[in-house]
Amino acid sequence: MILDSTDTICALSTANGMGAIAMIRVSGERAFEIVSSVFSKKIEIQKSHSAHFGVIKNVTEIIDEVVVTVFKNPASFTGEDVVEIACHGSVFIQQEILKLLLSKGCRLAKAGEFSMRAFANGKFDLSQAEAISDLISSTTEASHKLAMQQMRGGFSDEINGLREELVNFASLIELELDFSEEDVEFADRTQFNELLVRISAKLNSLIDSFSFGNAIKNGVPISIIGAPNSGKSTVLNRFLKEEKAIVSNIAGTTRDIVEDEIIIEGIKYRFIDTAGIRDTENEIEKIGIQRAIEKAGKSAIILYLFDSNEDLEKVKREFELLKSQLTDETIDVIWVANKIDLLEDASKLNEIDCIKISAFEGENLEVLTQKIIEITNSKQSQEQQVVVTNVRHFEALTKANNAIIEVTNALEMGIPGDLVAIDIRQSLHFLGEITGEISTDELLGNIFSKFCIGK
Amino acid sequence: MILDSTDTICALSTANGMGAIAMIRVSGERAFEIVSSVFSKKIEIQKSHSAHFGVIKNVTEIIDEVVVTVFKNPASFTGEDVVEIACHGSVFIQQEILKLLLSKGCRLAKAGEFSMRAFANGKFDLSQAEAISDLISSTTEASHKLAMQQMRGGFSDEINGLREELVNFASLIELELDFSEEDVEFADRTQFNELLVRISAKLNSLIDSFSFGNAIKNGVPISIIGAPNSGKSTVLNRFLKEEKAIVSNIAGTTRDIVEDEIIIEGIKYRFIDTAGIRDTENEIEKIGIQRAIEKAGKSAIILYLFDSNEDLEKVKREFELLKSQLTDETIDVIWVANKIDLLEDASKLNEIDCIKISAFEGENLEVLTQKIIEITNSKQSQEQQVVVTNVRHFEALTKANNAIIEVTNALEMGIPGDLVAIDIRQSLHFLGEITGEISTDELLGNIFSKFCIGK
Repeated sequence: MILDSTDTICALSTANGMGAIAMIRVSGERAFEIVSSVFSKKIEIQKSHSAHFGVIKNVTEIIDEVVVTVFKNPASFTGEDVVEIACHGSVFIQQEILKLLLSKGCRLAKAGEFSMRAFANGKFDLSQAEAISDLISSTTEASHKLAMQQMRGGFSDEINGLREELVNFASLIELELDFSEEDVEFADRTQFNELLVRISAKLNSLIDSFSFGNAIKNGVPISIIGAPNSGKSTVLNRFLKEEKAIVSNIAGTTRDIVEDEIIIEGIKYRFIDTAGIRDTENEIEKIGIQRAIEKAGKSAIILYLFDSNEDLEKVKREFELLKSQLTDETIDVIWVANKIDLLEDASKLNEIDCIKISAFEGENLEVLTQKIIEITNSKQSQEQQVVVTNVRHFEALTKANNAIIEVTNALEMGIPGDLVAIDIRQSLHFLGEITGEISTDELLGNIFSKFCIGK
Repeated sequence: MILDSTDTICALSTANGMGAIAMIRVSGERAFEIVSSVFSKKIEIQKSHSAHFGVIKNVTEIIDEVVVTVFKNPASFTGEDVVEIACHGSVFIQQEILKLLLSKGCRLAKAGEFSMRAFANGKFDLSQAEAISDLISSTTEASHKLAMQQMRGGFSDEINGLREELVNFASLIELELDFSEEDVEFADRTQFNELLVRISAKLNSLIDSFSFGNAIKNGVPISIIGAPNSGKSTVLNRFLKEEKAIVSNIAGTTRDIVEDEIIIEGIKYRFIDTAGIRDTENEIEKIGIQRAIEKAGKSAIILYLFDSNEDLEKVKREFELLKSQLTDETIDVIWVANKIDLLEDASKLNEIDCIKISAFEGENLEVLTQKIIEITNSKQSQEQQVVVTNVRHFEALTKANNAIIEVTNALEMGIPGDLVAIDIRQSLHFLGEITGEISTDELLGNIFSKFCIGK
C-alpha cells in the first residue's frame, strides 16, 4: 500500500538550480538518527522546532556548513520526525548531501510523498492537500486566494458538514432496516426530504461555482467574435499589448484560434481571437469559423465585435444566428462597436447597448476593460464563498448530487428503505472521496504524483 | 559608506522559480518588529534558533502558512537580528511576502548584502566571504573542496600568520625610528632577514599554487597538439563523448580552436583541439596554427599527438620546433601515438616514451585518461595544503612579495630604516587586502556585487 511505507525519505524542497540557500527535507522514523550520523550535533537530544548551525560531513570531509531545523513528530509537516537542512545553494552541494543521506539509509522521496504522509497522518484532508499543490502553482491573486481558502479548510468544512447530516439520517434509515419487521420510521421523512433539498441545493451551488473557480484557476476565457474585418485581431493585440495575431485589411486573415493570457487586477484572462464569421466557400476558413463558434460556446464572456459603420440590422441578424448555435445561455455578451474613429453618424449607435471603441487608435479600451472586470466581479459575488476549482471535486460533487436526486425520487415513490440506503451510501462515498475519507491507492497516487518533488 | 547602512533588508534566498518551499531572509535592527507585524506570533519574545509555524497576513488576508525561524544577534549569519521565512514555493507567494515586507519598512537586499554585513560584523574575513561565493558556484568535487577549505579559514590563517610576524618586526623597525638619533637596533637584522626569506618562500609557494588553484576552479586546460591529420579532433570527440569537432580525412580540417569541458574523477578538464601544425600558405590555417601554439603555451598539459606510422625522426623534429616556441617549461607533455590499429611495425615505437592509442577504435584511451589523472594528482600533492584560487588574492600576494623583495634588497644595501619601513607597510597592506583588514568601499562593492541576491 502506497501509504504504509516506513522508509525515511529525503528530497530537495526548494526550487531547482543555484541559489544562495537550498533546503533538503528528511522525514521518517530514522530521520534524526540518519542526520545525526552526518551532522556535527546529535539531533535526537535537541528540542522540537530548534535550529542548529553545524557542518555536514562524510566521515572527516566537510561537505557544507548548514543550519539544521528539528521537528519532532507529531508537530511537523508530515506528522513524522522531520529534519530540514538549509545548505549553501550550489547544485553540487545539494547533490552531495542527498547522496550522503541516501548512503545512510534514506530513500529519495517521490513527488508529493511528504504531503501524502501528512495526509495519512491526519495533518489535512485530501482537498486541503490538493490546495497545497494549487497554491504552489497559483500565479494570480484570485487563484491564490481560492487555493488558500481551500487549504485552510473552507471547502472541507462545507463538505464535512453536509456529509455529517447525511450520515445521521443514513444511520436512522439503516436502523429501520434492522427493525424492518416492525415497520417503524426512525427517520422523519419530511425532515429527511428537507435535508435532501438543502443538500442538493448546496451541491448544485458548489457544482455551479466550478465554472468560475476553474476560470479563476486557468484563466477567464473571453472570445472575440464577429464578422470578418471587424478588427478582432487588433482588439486581441491591444489587450495582450503585443502583435500576437497577424493583422491585415484582408477579410479572413485569422483562421486558427489565436489566444494568450493576461492578468488584469489579479485575475487571469484568456483572450481568444477567432476567425470572422461569414458564409465562405474556403474550406480552411469554414473550419476556422466552426471552431470560433465552439470557442464562443465555452467562454465566460463573449466580446461581440462589429464595425460601427456596418448596417445595424445586419449586425443584429448575425448575432441571432450566432446565439442560436450556443447552448450555454449563461455566457455574458458584451457588444463592442469598433472603428468609431471612422464613424460618420455617431447617433446611429444610440439604439443599442454597446461599448464604442477604436482598437486601432486605442480609444475607449479602458471602458471595455472595466466592463469585463465588472462582469467577473459580479460572477464572483454571485457565487458562494466556497468555490470549487478542482475538476476531480466537480466530478465527485456531480456524482454525489445525482445520488441525492436518486434518493429523493426513491422517497417520493415510496421505495423500500434498503434501496434508499444504497443511494445514500453512494452519495456519502462521493462526498468522502473529496476529503479523502474514502480513498484508493490509485486515487492517491494520481493526486500526489502531480505534486512537485520535495513537497 | 556601503557598510554602515542600518536598513533592514530582505530577499529571496532560495533559487528563483517554483519549488515546494522558498525561503525569504530578513536581516537588520527592525527584522523582528517588521516580521511580527505580518506574522501570527510576536517574534521579539521567541528564543533564538527557534522555529514557529503560523500565517503571514496582510491585515486580515492570509498570504501563506509558513515556518519562521528566529536568529537573535549576534548568533546569526549576518550578526544582526535575522528572520528566515520558509513559505510555499509559488512565485506569486514569494512576491507577495516580499512586497508586504517592503511595505512594512524593509528594503530589498542588494547582491551579497547579507554576506557583506556578516563581514562587517566580523563573522568572517574577506577571503572567507569570497569562498562562500566560490562554494555556491562550484560544480566539481575539487573546486568545492578548495572553496570549503578557504571558507573554513585555512587560507586566512596562513595570511594572518605571516602578517603577524611581519607586524612584529615592523613595529621594532618603527621603534628604531623614534630613537633614530641614538642609533640603536631593536630589530635583529639577521633574524629579520631570515623572516623575510621565510615569508617570501611562503608567498612564492602560494603564488605558484594559483595556476593549479585556478585550473581546478576553471578547468585544467589540456591542449591537443600535433601535425595535420594525426587525429586530434577524433581524440577530442572521444574525451567529450560527442561529435564536437568536425572530423575528416582532409588535413587541415580544424582551424578554429574547439574546446569543451568534462569532469573526470571530480576534476574539471578543458580539452582544446587545435589546428594541425605544418608549413602552409593558407592564411586562415596560418592564423589557426599560431593560435594552437599560443593555446599550448597556456595549457597545464599538452597531448602531443602523432600518427604512429609517421617517421619518428620527423615527429621528434617537429616537437623540438613546437617546444622552442613555448615559454613555460613547467607544462607537462604526454606523447601520444595515434592510429595504432593501422600500425604495421609495433616495435618501432619502443624507443620513445609514449601512450599508444587508436582514437578511431577507442583503444587505450583509458590509459591516456589515467596518465592525465596521475599528472593532475601529482601537481596537487606538490602544492601546499593551501591553494590560491582567486585572481585578486594572486595579485595581492604578488604585490606583497614584490614589496618583501624590496625590503630584502634595502636591508642588503644598508638603506635607512624609515625607507625600509615604507616597503614593509606596503607588504602588510597587500596582505591585509586579502583578508579585508584593509579594504575600500570600491573593493568591497566589487567583491560582493558578484554574489547572488539573497546571500
